[in-house]
Amino acid sequence: MSEQILNDEYFMRQAYIEAQKAQEKDEVPIGCVIVSQGRIIARAHNLTETLNDVTAHAEMQAITAAANVLGGKYLKDCTLYVTVEPCPMCAGAIAWAQLSRVVYAAEDEKRGYMLYSPIILHPKTKVAQGVMQDECSLLVKNFFKSKR
Amino acid sequence: MSEQILNDEYFMRQAYIEAQKAQEKDEVPIGCVIVSQGRIIARAHNLTETLNDVTAHAEMQAITAAANVLGGKYLKDCTLYVTVEPCPMCAGAIAWAQLSRVVYAAEDEKRGYMLYSPIILHPKTKVAQGVMQDECSLLVKNFFKSKR
Repeated sequence: MSEQILNDEYFMRQAYIEAQKAQEKDEVPIGCVIVSQGRIIARAHNLTETLNDVTAHAEMQAITAAANVLGGKYLKDCTLYVTVEPCPMCAGAIAWAQLSRVVYAAEDEKRGYMLYSPIILHPKTKVAQGVMQDECSLLVKNFFKSKR
Repeated sequence: MSEQILNDEYFMRQAYIEAQKAQEKDEVPIGCVIVSQGRIIARAHNLTETLNDVTAHAEMQAITAAANVLGGKYLKDCTLYVTVEPCPMCAGAIAWAQLSRVVYAAEDEKRGYMLYSPIILHPKTKVAQGVMQDECSLLVKNFFKSKR
């Protein structure tokens, strides 16, 4: 696969595929992948209902899994892709794991970390927002609409 | 055991015992218990080194375990006791789990959630600070002193 294809949109699409898996399980459809040196080392989707555990957000599971793959708890040269803006819990975990870059698609106007404090993430962590925003946002909106 | 003994100090002492278990494993000595109807339903200590996982804070593990005991992911009528002020990650998890009360001993002037945003916790969550502050603080200070 060429370098060109392995861009932010490619990896966000993989996170989107994870979000779709969550949807199939009737979970809030949010997905995440973590990339190290151009390779996906962890992928996860929200499983809070299935696991009966509020901590089972996609990002949390992906961080745990990535550390397991790398054999160290710090993910310094990794990028985390997630379909929705991380909440304070996940942003806190991203900071502890020292991820160098975070890319998220849709903003979360109710529970996103930016509402609380942008400095939950380390100031050196690069953040990009907007890749596949419409599709990722629509997935969540449609999910909640179907619940009403 | 009389009602009088089962007070905040009693439960914080249990959290302190957990913190000591962390210390024995050469982990940052922080411990936590979760109490429901006067009964400890979960106890945990920091295991980030042992599990090679930044998400393995005492509070995170206790929340997961308590939900497992209660059979529901919300811990609405529970109190969480922790020997050190929760970080934003743990405060975020406490908010998701809808814990009604949090009691912490020592403040964390570097990574405590209050530095970032007091509203990471739900405004209805009652917070008490200071029970066994000196002992819990000293445990952590001595740990880091021994590392220098």
